[in-house]
Amino acid sequence: MSNTAGKVIKCKAAIAWEAGKPLVIEEVEVAPPQAMEVRIKIIFTSLCHTDVYFWEAKGQKPVFPRIFGHEAGGIVESVGEGVTDLAPGDHVLPVFTGECKDCAHCKSEESNMCNLLRINTDRGVMIGDGKSRFSINGKPIYHFVGTSTFSEYTVVHVGCVAKINPLAPLDKVCVLSCGISTGLGATLNVAKPPKGSSVAIFGLGAVGLAAAEGARIAGASRIIGIDVNPRRFIEAKKFGVTEFVNPKDHDKPVQEVLAEMTDGGVDRSIECTGNVDAMISAFEYISLSHGWGVAVLVGVPHKDAVFKTHPMNVLNERTLKGTFFGNYKPRSDIPGVVEKYMNKELELEKFITHEVPFSEINKAFDYMLKGDSLRCIIRMGE
Amino acid sequence: MSNTAGKVIKCKAAIAWEAGKPLVIEEVEVAPPQAMEVRIKIIFTSLCHTDVYFWEAKGQKPVFPRIFGHEAGGIVESVGEGVTDLAPGDHVLPVFTGECKDCAHCKSEESNMCNLLRINTDRGVMIGDGKSRFSINGKPIYHFVGTSTFSEYTVVHVGCVAKINPLAPLDKVCVLSCGISTGLGATLNVAKPPKGSSVAIFGLGAVGLAAAEGARIAGASRIIGIDVNPRRFIEAKKFGVTEFVNPKDHDKPVQEVLAEMTDGGVDRSIECTGNVDAMISAFEYISLSHGWGVAVLVGVPHKDAVFKTHPMNVLNERTLKGTFFGNYKPRSDIPGVVEKYMNKELELEKFITHEVPFSEINKAFDYMLKGDSLRCIIRMGE
Ligand SMILES: NC(=O)c1ccc[n+]([C@@H]2O[C@H](COP(=O)([O-])OP(=O)(O)OC[C@H]3O[C@@H](n4cnc5c(N)ncnc54)[C@H](O)[C@@H]3O)[C@@H](O)[C@H]2O)c1
Ligand SMILES: NC(=O)c1ccc[n+]([C@@H]2O[C@H](COP(=O)([O-])OP(=O)(O)OC[C@H]3O[C@@H](n4cnc5c(N)ncnc54)[C@H](O)[C@@H]3O)[C@@H](O)[C@H]2O)c1
Ligand SMILES: [Zn+2]
Ligand SMILES: [Zn+2]
Ligand SMILES: [Zn+2]
Ligand SMILES: [Zn+2]
Repeated sequence: MSNTAGKVIKCKAAIAWEAGKPLVIEEVEVAPPQAMEVRIKIIFTSLCHTDVYFWEAKGQKPVFPRIFGHEAGGIVESVGEGVTDLAPGDHVLPVFTGECKDCAHCKSEESNMCNLLRINTDRGVMIGDGKSRFSINGKPIYHFVGTSTFSEYTVVHVGCVAKINPLAPLDKVCVLSCGISTGLGATLNVAKPPKGSSVAIFGLGAVGLAAAEGARIAGASRIIGIDVNPRRFIEAKKFGVTEFVNPKDHDKPVQEVLAEMTDGGVDRSIECTGNVDAMISAFEYISLSHGWGVAVLVGVPHKDAVFKTHPMNVLNERTLKGTFFGNYKPRSDIPGVVEKYMNKELELEKFITHEVPFSEINKAFDYMLKGDSLRCIIRMGE
Repeated sequence: MSNTAGKVIKCKAAIAWEAGKPLVIEEVEVAPPQAMEVRIKIIFTSLCHTDVYFWEAKGQKPVFPRIFGHEAGGIVESVGEGVTDLAPGDHVLPVFTGECKDCAHCKSEESNMCNLLRINTDRGVMIGDGKSRFSINGKPIYHFVGTSTFSEYTVVHVGCVAKINPLAPLDKVCVLSCGISTGLGATLNVAKPPKGSSVAIFGLGAVGLAAAEGARIAGASRIIGIDVNPRRFIEAKKFGVTEFVNPKDHDKPVQEVLAEMTDGGVDRSIECTGNVDAMISAFEYISLSHGWGVAVLVGVPHKDAVFKTHPMNVLNERTLKGTFFGNYKPRSDIPGVVEKYMNKELELEKFITHEVPFSEINKAFDYMLKGDSLRCIIRMGE
């Protein structure tokens, strides 16, 4: 046990006091973990669009002051009552969605959407007692998706913590906490392209490029990238994407352009934009002449979006699937993804375009907002 | 070789001279099979909705005079040039869609939608030479979906003929040529309910009841039948359907009624109505609270129908799939379905509600139009 176990820890955290305002690094008090909780020393964290989205808090119920951050690698400092499968010193990745191992979803092989610990972006407190573990001068500072990794120490429910190989470099594998696993799993667990097949990826952000990395690992023979931003094509070449289509360069629907390129369709298409028209294109594209094919939706749509298609497009033996966190169960499966990186099957370096010290965390926001970064790693130490 | 091989055969056929008018049994001349064709003596045939639909020919390009019929069992009389895997005397089921064994679809494990021999309801002639093999006084009588089984002899492309166990009773297994295999395969090949799972079937016609039979075979623990016609519930009890919902008995959307019955949703739902609202219900029903589940669309929708749903219903890890002929490849797979009947795994008797001699074929149309029959067998002999 560390000598901080059971005690309040004072440390630095990046506080979002208000929507859209730069984060402020200040001293917070981090309470000890309660039953089924773990306190983690964060070593590296990275920034994802979802942090930016809830920090901007446009058209949402604002939850402030709050500590954002949900992609990170750290070391367990202490554990609360009832925690048996984690101990101080364990290397871990906190994850924004959990695995209680007890609900119908956790027991089903077909789901990773745990009833107890499924992502909740509105909640700013721990589920055990409805309270925050962070405070400044006795005033609570809210959590974000149960992880709040923009802090030197954080408290996370044990069900949201993946225990990983202690030899894995945390400055690389920290990106597996969210977007990269999502894209990778969308291909490897859901689309499952057979070796030699053709795969189209709609949207070449970090998630789409991780889907492309999955296609490369699966041995796809053609990986076609579709994006409205031509800057994404330069980066995408590193990810085995060999053909590019910008829907803005064409008058006809993108699915028709693609069908001409591919003699009727691809075997798999993976939608990573969040745009409902791209979702429909992704689905109808595999539909154009093939009587098979799987379209996977990953992007999170606008709340009023409607997915529309002629049912004949379904009947002709196409499959439409959705995925959440790449269908990975955080505790059971993420350690294995880390091993894929350790075995050099999976490359993570190419996702990491920037790195800043914790004191410059606001720069990470700038890089993402300008569309310059895929992932910017934030070093918590020194 | 039979002594009729290579010669024109004169026999009786039921001719549809005009849309919606009773069939007339007359003598037709049936030309010998050309290259890659087979002439079959039909022993039993049955009537399916699709015959009735194209006979009524409402809002379609009429193709008359025509010989309908596409569910049947028969014996090969003679074979044309190049036919090597069938010989006179073989027991066979003609099928409305084919398997050339050579195109991309036939070579793909994921498709049964043969490029060459996929169903074509407009074509009234053989694909080899664009001519009909039926004539009366030298005037051609058109084919229907390449099978035209309402004739004592018919000519079928070899790719549309399944060679089956000669011990199988043709008056039972003839129903496997279309609807029953479609529903059965929708469950066994596409929905694939795990043992002990719950399955909802929308539409309890022959196709839906065959889907229920599939669920029984797969070991589903709950089979819920949904139909707007309460008469269907009586028959459905024989098919292991234990719970019934009539959407007309409720004010709220049927998916909400069902969700209450099943604590949130079923594991699989199979849509066998052809009604687009039922398709959406079937999909959203598995979506209501479960983060898994597969909805399979079987029913053929109206040409202007639009399938609409919020993409979040997809993202929450649901799968939407379509199927054509239950994903069975006619030549490769249907003989195995016949074996399931021979092994007593599959019950066919309960689908057969009526039987008539060929001379009374119009009665079969009446039974179906009144909704009295599931399948009416038509005896060609005597
Ligand atoms: N399902 C999950 O579990 C999960 C997890 C993480 C992220 N996501 C979602 O995945 C999506 C992608 O995330 P990201 O971080 O890569 O985002 P990103 O913004 O970096 O990338 C999206 C890309 O899509 C492109 N794009 C937008 N509209 C397009 C269109 N109509 N056609 C073609 N390209 C288009 C953009 O130019 C951009 O390059 C987001 O919707 C995100 O919310 C889902
Ligand atoms: N995909 C294929 O390969 C294939 C093959 C054969 C048949 N089919 C299609 O399968 C469907 C079923 O065929 P069938 O022969 O069993 O037809 P059927 O008419 O005997 O049965 C359909 C049933 O659905 C019920 N129904 C209609 N609208 C409904 C609604 N909104 N909610 C609930 N129930 C509703 C009807 O009362 C009827 O009992 C048809 O659309 C047919 O064209 C598809
Ligand atoms: Zn759970
Ligand atoms: Zn994220
Ligand atoms: Zn073929
Ligand atoms: Zn039929």
